[in-house]
Amino acid sequence: MIVILKQHATEEDRQNLIEELERYGVKVHLSEGDQRTVLGLVGDTTKIDKSVLEANDAVHAVKRVAEPYKKANRKFHPEDTVVKVGNTQVGGGNLTVMAGPCSVESREQILAVAHAVKAAGATMLRGGAFKPRTSPYSFQGMGPQGLDLLREAKEETGLPIVTEIMDPNDLKYFRDIDVLQVGARNMQNFDLLKALGKTDQPILLKRGLSATYEELLMSAEYIMSEGNPNVILCERGIRTFETYTRNTLDVAAVPVLRKLTHLPIIIDPSHSGGRRELVVPLSLAGIAAGADGIEVEVHNDPAHALSDGPQQLLPEAFEVLMAQLKTVHAAVHAEA
Amino acid sequence: MIVILKQHATEEDRQNLIEELERYGVKVHLSEGDQRTVLGLVGDTTKIDKSVLEANDAVHAVKRVAEPYKKANRKFHPEDTVVKVGNTQVGGGNLTVMAGPCSVESREQILAVAHAVKAAGATMLRGGAFKPRTSPYSFQGMGPQGLDLLREAKEETGLPIVTEIMDPNDLKYFRDIDVLQVGARNMQNFDLLKALGKTDQPILLKRGLSATYEELLMSAEYIMSEGNPNVILCERGIRTFETYTRNTLDVAAVPVLRKLTHLPIIIDPSHSGGRRELVVPLSLAGIAAGADGIEVEVHNDPAHALSDGPQQLLPEAFEVLMAQLKTVHAAVHAEA
Amino acid sequence: MIVILKQHATEEDRQNLIEELERYGVKVHLSEGDQRTVLGLVGDTTKIDKSVLEANDAVHAVKRVAEPYKKANRKFHPEDTVVKVGNTQVGGGNLTVMAGPCSVESREQILAVAHAVKAAGATMLRGGAFKPRTSPYSFQGMGPQGLDLLREAKEETGLPIVTEIMDPNDLKYFRDIDVLQVGARNMQNFDLLKALGKTDQPILLKRGLSATYEELLMSAEYIMSEGNPNVILCERGIRTFETYTRNTLDVAAVPVLRKLTHLPIIIDPSHSGGRRELVVPLSLAGIAAGADGIEVEVHNDPAHALSDGPQQLLPEAFEVLMAQLKTVHAAVHAEA
Amino acid sequence: MIVILKQHATEEDRQNLIEELERYGVKVHLSEGDQRTVLGLVGDTTKIDKSVLEANDAVHAVKRVAEPYKKANRKFHPEDTVVKVGNTQVGGGNLTVMAGPCSVESREQILAVAHAVKAAGATMLRGGAFKPRTSPYSFQGMGPQGLDLLREAKEETGLPIVTEIMDPNDLKYFRDIDVLQVGARNMQNFDLLKALGKTDQPILLKRGLSATYEELLMSAEYIMSEGNPNVILCERGIRTFETYTRNTLDVAAVPVLRKLTHLPIIIDPSHSGGRRELVVPLSLAGIAAGADGIEVEVHNDPAHALSDGPQQLLPEAFEVLMAQLKTVHAAVHAEA
Repeated sequence: MIVILKQHATEEDRQNLIEELERYGVKVHLSEGDQRTVLGLVGDTTKIDKSVLEANDAVHAVKRVAEPYKKANRKFHPEDTVVKVGNTQVGGGNLTVMAGPCSVESREQILAVAHAVKAAGATMLRGGAFKPRTSPYSFQGMGPQGLDLLREAKEETGLPIVTEIMDPNDLKYFRDIDVLQVGARNMQNFDLLKALGKTDQPILLKRGLSATYEELLMSAEYIMSEGNPNVILCERGIRTFETYTRNTLDVAAVPVLRKLTHLPIIIDPSHSGGRRELVVPLSLAGIAAGADGIEVEVHNDPAHALSDGPQQLLPEAFEVLMAQLKTVHAAVHAEA
Repeated sequence: MIVILKQHATEEDRQNLIEELERYGVKVHLSEGDQRTVLGLVGDTTKIDKSVLEANDAVHAVKRVAEPYKKANRKFHPEDTVVKVGNTQVGGGNLTVMAGPCSVESREQILAVAHAVKAAGATMLRGGAFKPRTSPYSFQGMGPQGLDLLREAKEETGLPIVTEIMDPNDLKYFRDIDVLQVGARNMQNFDLLKALGKTDQPILLKRGLSATYEELLMSAEYIMSEGNPNVILCERGIRTFETYTRNTLDVAAVPVLRKLTHLPIIIDPSHSGGRRELVVPLSLAGIAAGADGIEVEVHNDPAHALSDGPQQLLPEAFEVLMAQLKTVHAAVHAEA
Repeated sequence: MIVILKQHATEEDRQNLIEELERYGVKVHLSEGDQRTVLGLVGDTTKIDKSVLEANDAVHAVKRVAEPYKKANRKFHPEDTVVKVGNTQVGGGNLTVMAGPCSVESREQILAVAHAVKAAGATMLRGGAFKPRTSPYSFQGMGPQGLDLLREAKEETGLPIVTEIMDPNDLKYFRDIDVLQVGARNMQNFDLLKALGKTDQPILLKRGLSATYEELLMSAEYIMSEGNPNVILCERGIRTFETYTRNTLDVAAVPVLRKLTHLPIIIDPSHSGGRRELVVPLSLAGIAAGADGIEVEVHNDPAHALSDGPQQLLPEAFEVLMAQLKTVHAAVHAEA
Repeated sequence: MIVILKQHATEEDRQNLIEELERYGVKVHLSEGDQRTVLGLVGDTTKIDKSVLEANDAVHAVKRVAEPYKKANRKFHPEDTVVKVGNTQVGGGNLTVMAGPCSVESREQILAVAHAVKAAGATMLRGGAFKPRTSPYSFQGMGPQGLDLLREAKEETGLPIVTEIMDPNDLKYFRDIDVLQVGARNMQNFDLLKALGKTDQPILLKRGLSATYEELLMSAEYIMSEGNPNVILCERGIRTFETYTRNTLDVAAVPVLRKLTHLPIIIDPSHSGGRRELVVPLSLAGIAAGADGIEVEVHNDPAHALSDGPQQLLPEAFEVLMAQLKTVHAAVHAEA
């Protein structure tokens, strides 16, 4: 961390500031220029709040050199994390494909889709039981009953389950769920993150619509600092000025996060594009950029889906996608 | 709502779709062109999920004509809502000034600031006890003890209290709090919104960093549809590409929301700019644009504040701001 | 400028880099930490290209402390610049109001509007003769003939003229025009900026839709570094995710630019909002935030305007706006 | 085009509006609802300016059904356009790789890079002679002399040349240049687009930093409507809130543009990411999403490049990239 002093800062200001900084347990190196004095902080600065320093009247600017996250940081944990989910693994060169409907809507629906995606080669079943919807008048999900149907689908197909949790109060319903998803709108619901950090269940953490890479990693850090290391990151599109697509898939997130963190990274081609015809090209782009997998929406009757119909694939289209994914995954890994 | 059919849609597709639409209780008017057929939906369309229609293979596009919110909609409630808070009122031509520190840090601090802002003319005291912080290593607030200190400050000054709630589980601590604030990061924490909708306490709902006006109003609708009409909206800056300021105050939100909704609207000049020197110009801009008031951060020792120091005003600067606010408020209302 | 070296940088890397830096005529101060070595550059760094340093394999990051612009920088020119335009002045506490139609459409139209805005108190007449239109099929402006009509309107009313130039080739038509406007889409048309820098005519430089404050000031620097100091800046709304308004007026630009530069700053309430009903609140907000004036679109028959009809005011509405502007301007300046 | 009337619109308003619309040569279908009247326009609406209609007091909203561009529109030109450049082709299943330095800096440099990229399999040589730089104090390019060096490199290697033009005045220097590039900052420099439309030289049109797909296609339409059909589109990253990368590559632009237009589409992995380590993953992502090729920066000594050093690849890295590109290109096309 670099602290640049204002030109008018007095010797006393400087001494007071240095003492304050040393109380954080860091060493302070002073560099005096003609116009500016710069303090270089050496040691663990993750606990120093940048804005606390910026509020000091003698301080012109504060620049971080080291990242403010630690457990999620590749520098302190160079090897890739591989998250075990049932008998499959996320990360470590495996191709993870979480597929299934946006919402669990009925027994028939979820079983049909589960069998179809299993047959095509999916490695997990996704489906929403608790649904975060923009409108209070939209379908809000089947709740605990939806979770029961997912359990039944798991029993029939053997596919581990991924499903969203929105409220720490609901954790009691999710004790045997394989992967707990935190949606984009809850990425900074810190009470939820802390509660999930106290479990040891794998967490699929989706990037918020306007969250920076650093904020995403700080949210992962919330979970990890409570003791749960099993975090999978998901890029699902950010909000930009372009409105033709629902959101803008930031495919660079994959190699950037790969560099900054050891956690596995998947992409969501369904929510980012919001259009069925974009699912295949975005999935292939994500895998080509190095993602560990995708989470994709598949529905046996999208035209009557209770949510997100326009972006859900039919099982036949999913089958074609699986074949292409494998080819591109192989091509990328052959060259790596 | 207007539904535009694809060119290849058959007569059967069209009949099926019309039947489906009529099941929502709306009337369907058909308009046939050379290239396109357009269905006009008449009646209450708030319960129709746009994406469900868009998923239909015969549908080219769906455009909303009416807004998807009802209780928050000025069309169905033309008079301005005035929210009573203790013996003050928000809306209705009153100038509301919620002032106080970002975080409650100690008894001395909160009492000193409370007396100072009261003396300068604030109408409510703000202060955070439960703090949503990007980093798990930053100060997380004093929790219930912070609320007790706010109660003491209220008793001493008579100022009603505004403070943030993050988790529906914490509602038990907030039963006598005058205004419950929902932070920008929780604007779409739907379980929290529903829980607050079941109380009758005034809610200060802050716009999310990347939320559209419509999404903000849909979140208000979540609270109102559960029975609580006491919602105050707050524009607090949106996330854009500009990084000099913390966020970008969208001052047009004030007149736009004024037109779309009957709810009172205030602005937050502290979080939007993130810099002390911007607080006065942004406050005056908000009032000039027609806002019902501001929520502003004031601290007696910003250089040692535990959060958001760079954007907190000293009490003396707040006093100057109050005088300017009143002059501009009078100027705008004189002309209206 | 601060240069942070990579951990693996060798003694040789460091020496080479320091020599390279000293060739720019700056002094280099070295600060060694346990983990990082930091170089502090002292002297004029405006000519150092940040990206050239970042490309060096031994460099981890480069942070600017000083701004990369000089002639536009308030640090080197503390007093406000006042730009003389005919017998009026922009800046220096004056309230500048540039009003008129989006496009010059006919003799009748421009004369009628010119007389109306003059009567209401405008200080300059705006009107487009060369129009930058998104579509090649939209009205492209009257060209040189439009400029003649503006000259006639000036002769009749005495109002100085503001009109847009798009191509350096057209400068020959603009020799007697009072203020040459550079539109948002041309803010980084560097050949145009250089050509305008070689004149001494006042330039109204509009911020690009996605330009940062620094980029706007660098574009001003292009004009000024060629010898023309008469630059007026204009905030006209930036592109964000919100689509209800045409663009988002960034009202904080006014106090921020006021701090960073000595150049006058006006706002454009017409293009930013894109809706007639927003013109008054946005104008008042801009003035309350400290702007030196506004550029506003006024048309005698907006419903038949050849461009931007929805955002143009009728002369009667403009008259009401003028009265409100003066009241708020007085209120803000009384308090300053 | 759909025109929705205001509730208060009178029978007379409506008749006037219909007459006005019919003057554009379109047929108007009327659909009356309880609350709203909707006019459906049938025929060629590309010449109707949406904002002219929106300015009408009787109009609530106008929604386009058909796109406002025609020559660039796939609907009117279903087969893919293939642009011939020397003896290579862009589009039609070919893998186009334009490679070379950001700026032409010297004879040695450009010849060395040209030979290296030719050897590795590039199909064209890129290099900037006229450089659009944010700062007037940065290297502005070698100008006409740089073009001569490019010609020499072409003669030696046989590679066609791609280089940027910024000012219509400079066209005289570019008569024998193979592909003329329009930079992102000039995407809406309409005078430049019109001038290029009057040539028959292939144009590489880069998407502006905050341009929508529609705006990009309208800029292509400017060129095409003047008679030049040889337009190649380039997605080069858009400006978002994320600052870790220089810009955000919008990889969805590839399949979206593929659907909307028949023009070839390439991506620029260098400017979008702004970091050398992102060039490979972004290139592969673009090809996997279906792009016709890439434009990539390669320099023999990036640490001393006069511009954009941090994002330029070394020739050896480019060689590795070429191999991976071919594998992924084959994988995607095998499956299509």
